[in-house]
Amino acid sequence: MASLQSLRANCRKVMCIGRNYADHIKELNSAKPKQPFFFLKPPSALLLPDQGPVLRPRGVTMHYEVELGLIMGKTVKDLHPEDTEGAMDAIEGYLLAIDMTARNVQDEAKRKGLPWSIAKGFDTFLPISNLIAKSKIPNPHNAHLWLSVNGQVKQSDNTELMLFRIPRQLSDISRVMSLEKGDIVLTGTPKGVGPVVTGDVMKAGLKVDGKDIEEANIEVL
Amino acid sequence: MASLQSLRANCRKVMCIGRNYADHIKELNSAKPKQPFFFLKPPSALLLPDQGPVLRPRGVTMHYEVELGLIMGKTVKDLHPEDTEGAMDAIEGYLLAIDMTARNVQDEAKRKGLPWSIAKGFDTFLPISNLIAKSKIPNPHNAHLWLSVNGQVKQSDNTELMLFRIPRQLSDISRVMSLEKGDIVLTGTPKGVGPVVTGDVMKAGLKVDGKDIEEANIEVL
Ligand SMILES: [Mg+2]
Ligand SMILES: [Mg+2]
Ligand SMILES: [Mg+2]
Repeated sequence: MASLQSLRANCRKVMCIGRNYADHIKELNSAKPKQPFFFLKPPSALLLPDQGPVLRPRGVTMHYEVELGLIMGKTVKDLHPEDTEGAMDAIEGYLLAIDMTARNVQDEAKRKGLPWSIAKGFDTFLPISNLIAKSKIPNPHNAHLWLSVNGQVKQSDNTELMLFRIPRQLSDISRVMSLEKGDIVLTGTPKGVGPVVTGDVMKAGLKVDGKDIEEANIEVL
Repeated sequence: MASLQSLRANCRKVMCIGRNYADHIKELNSAKPKQPFFFLKPPSALLLPDQGPVLRPRGVTMHYEVELGLIMGKTVKDLHPEDTEGAMDAIEGYLLAIDMTARNVQDEAKRKGLPWSIAKGFDTFLPISNLIAKSKIPNPHNAHLWLSVNGQVKQSDNTELMLFRIPRQLSDISRVMSLEKGDIVLTGTPKGVGPVVTGDVMKAGLKVDGKDIEEANIEVL
């Protein structure tokens, strides 16, 4: 698998699914989507482990959203929604990511019918863990995501709760735009999102069969 | 300047400004923005000259938007809005682009407060011209953009009509996200946008001082 550095240097697209866990939809008072919907984050938002803290822009209410990330290993186009094998073959590995969101900016964009790119796209708004080998997550629909702030657990749920599973996600994305090698797909966040402020320490982790697979410590300055 | 092929292979971000010409805002019944706003197109949407036609997805009302594109030559962060020299120094060259838009998908996204990424992001939704050397456009705020469909001129306006000029655009973008070498910035479209259907031929061009800049021809079948 490619290194983190080459991922940072070569990733050309970060596609994120919104509203993919029922309880998270409720907490934001959002409508349950009939089909997956997606938005782009710019690769310039990527923050590697030990690259420093997430930076809170002035006037921004910054929320964390812990998510399982897929690293694409090949070009995928027009994938069939039931082609589970095709979807799994196209995944090169995983990572844990926090889809940082300027919630007040996003709320205003939603009200005005404007794009989400700014709310989702600030520099450092995509802290990621080390790369996770594919073999470490035998079933990406059975992994446990958690995130704590200052030692308090805020998010803790299993990926089995996804409304739209990964083959359907990759199908819907790839029928709009080709996924390319090195692209990252974020698969949505479970309930428990909330704000962080300067000085907070976020920790996020992923467990498979009760065993810690990867732990990412992310500080907010 | 880099080649088109290396731009296609290495471009990591396409940032587009919305509502940057007053008459275009009127024609879409949009609100005039107090500050520039932006959205991302994925690099996978890029369509080089002679790479074939723009493909209309089923059920999509596809609109053209001709725009002057900037190719960034260096990393820019937190540019001051009045730093005209800094802005111009950061530009490596130009291109002409058509920001193809799934207007019905975008209208629905606006109504529902959803992201624009799908409406703007289909494969082939970013046809571009050959690269235009910086020296060919001495003043990017005085260039004439035009677009015709089946020989009928639909858009024809000067870039002097931009509401927010390029230094302000690069400032506002780079205070949210770093612009990196090879990134493309689309500077907005003048009035006259409209639909194209399968079989239509779009031509677009750019004139400086009444002279056609040869490299800026786009033909789409
Ligand atoms: Mg968007
Ligand atoms: Mg998210
Ligand atoms: Mg446009």
